[in-house]
Amino acid sequence: MRIAIDAMGGDHAPQSTVEGALAAAREWSDTEIVLVGKEQVLRPMLEGAPANLRIHPAEETIEAEDEPVKAVRRKKDASMVVAGRLVREGEADAMISAGNTGALMTTGLLVVGRMEGIERPALAPMIPTVDERGVLALDLGANMDAKPEHLAQYALMGSVYREKVHGIAKPRVGLLNVGTEAMKGNELTKAAYPLLEELPVNFVGNVEARDILTGACDVLVCDGFAGNILLKSLEGTAGTLFSILKREFTKSWKNKLAAAVLMPSLRGLKQTLDYKEHGGAPLLGLSGLVVKGHGSSDGGAIKNAVRQARLALQNKLTESIAREISGK
Amino acid sequence: MRIAIDAMGGDHAPQSTVEGALAAAREWSDTEIVLVGKEQVLRPMLEGAPANLRIHPAEETIEAEDEPVKAVRRKKDASMVVAGRLVREGEADAMISAGNTGALMTTGLLVVGRMEGIERPALAPMIPTVDERGVLALDLGANMDAKPEHLAQYALMGSVYREKVHGIAKPRVGLLNVGTEAMKGNELTKAAYPLLEELPVNFVGNVEARDILTGACDVLVCDGFAGNILLKSLEGTAGTLFSILKREFTKSWKNKLAAAVLMPSLRGLKQTLDYKEHGGAPLLGLSGLVVKGHGSSDGGAIKNAVRQARLALQNKLTESIAREISGK
Repeated sequence: MRIAIDAMGGDHAPQSTVEGALAAAREWSDTEIVLVGKEQVLRPMLEGAPANLRIHPAEETIEAEDEPVKAVRRKKDASMVVAGRLVREGEADAMISAGNTGALMTTGLLVVGRMEGIERPALAPMIPTVDERGVLALDLGANMDAKPEHLAQYALMGSVYREKVHGIAKPRVGLLNVGTEAMKGNELTKAAYPLLEELPVNFVGNVEARDILTGACDVLVCDGFAGNILLKSLEGTAGTLFSILKREFTKSWKNKLAAAVLMPSLRGLKQTLDYKEHGGAPLLGLSGLVVKGHGSSDGGAIKNAVRQARLALQNKLTESIAREISGK
Repeated sequence: MRIAIDAMGGDHAPQSTVEGALAAAREWSDTEIVLVGKEQVLRPMLEGAPANLRIHPAEETIEAEDEPVKAVRRKKDASMVVAGRLVREGEADAMISAGNTGALMTTGLLVVGRMEGIERPALAPMIPTVDERGVLALDLGANMDAKPEHLAQYALMGSVYREKVHGIAKPRVGLLNVGTEAMKGNELTKAAYPLLEELPVNFVGNVEARDILTGACDVLVCDGFAGNILLKSLEGTAGTLFSILKREFTKSWKNKLAAAVLMPSLRGLKQTLDYKEHGGAPLLGLSGLVVKGHGSSDGGAIKNAVRQARLALQNKLTESIAREISGK
């Protein structure tokens, strides 16, 4: 299989993407890694690279500050756009980018193309949970409002992903809501509930925000606005608590000594809840596979995204989603 | 001034409400406390009560499980409903209840009555912040969907409350949103933003969920759905982290010893972030003052709610809100 990596996307690119590409090419000799980006920059970094790693030239770069739609339309030779074109034209089976999220969603829509029958593709990151299973939440993309039918498609796509890529049988699908009873919610969730009940997924009903972290479901369905509020308040609360603990634990030499004893436990917990550790987020509902790496991805994170893409390809994720959607 | 307390509302009523009423009557001799509830239950609990505490009989009780609108309509002699009637008829200046939230909002609307010009009253609890200032969030009531005009009224009412009851000059009003830039958001927040800019309040723009806990604003404006997701994920994350820390800290005798040293710091933090510690939530936009106590309120919490109601009455909260609303 062939996996294209947007070599210029991400805070630490191209260092991170080259490192990740090298590590992936070395580990998986059956996979061809295509680094898409400026040849004169990448070439010197690839001395001694294995034969299954090659460069595909692209002279432009989409920056983090670029306005997504404009950038994708105008920069036709940007590394991200070219990688998307490789997927559309069948020259790559998947693409990975840690670049501008909005631009990647636009590339997915305009360059790779929507899957037939899908009204709106969804960005689906993993939210960490304390049982380390994690929950796939969708949509967390740039579309803030959603219709009930969109939520139903998110449920279906998320369920297939968890099954095919994470090997979970009958993933538990939950609807983010303000109470567990069926009739709770706003107009959107009340209208979505009966649609989710009719899907061929293991719908476990409404899930409250307070129960996400303890792993109440495997797939969490929400609109982009609610998902953003949820994710950022989880991140914000955990981050704030850890920084307060750190301050308290270094207040006196007595506290410092005591904290040193507890540090291994704390570090483990912090790592468990680190959003960035949990791999790339697939963009579901496109006619090809697109994986979004966290902007701060290092080489290890890029390699993990390749691992994820390989699993998705091996288990025919896109074909399975297409089958579920058309079979409705 | 006269403050009515729904003696039968709350998980620990009437023990909690009687204790709170006694403590409040003893502390503030200028305030008449009216305990509304079953006389034969309350009378024996009030031996030796000061002269400024009296019982107003009400034979029925609204239970936590009761369907709000039905209960308020049918149980005309319920303690909550009777307390509301005292406010409407001018026999009490304010009412406090720790009972069924939905029923209290219904009592506010149907019994106490809406303030002229207000489209929708809002429930406004304090969300704890690490700087201990807290943020007043509204709406967190039973209405899940809101219109842009509702959010504008929430902003105005919340700002007046923080100024009049908490003595904050020019309270910073923020709009809960997915990014800080003006054009971010869903349809609702994008339409609300320009309305908030035009208000005579200190509008500081959009506030992200991750910045709430560190005190990004004094008043947070949101619809009931987003507010619930935010509040419950803050509570859930903090609660989950504390319970994991507890588990880790008692894993071995070494950890137990170290944790004992750090316990004072941890306990302080836990208390700071305890939602229940932060007093009652006013129901804003009614023609009289209604304060909702947390369901698990004890005597101290009820007394605190009386303190809050006194401050609001002394500083003419309801009149000030009416002036701002009509002056628009």
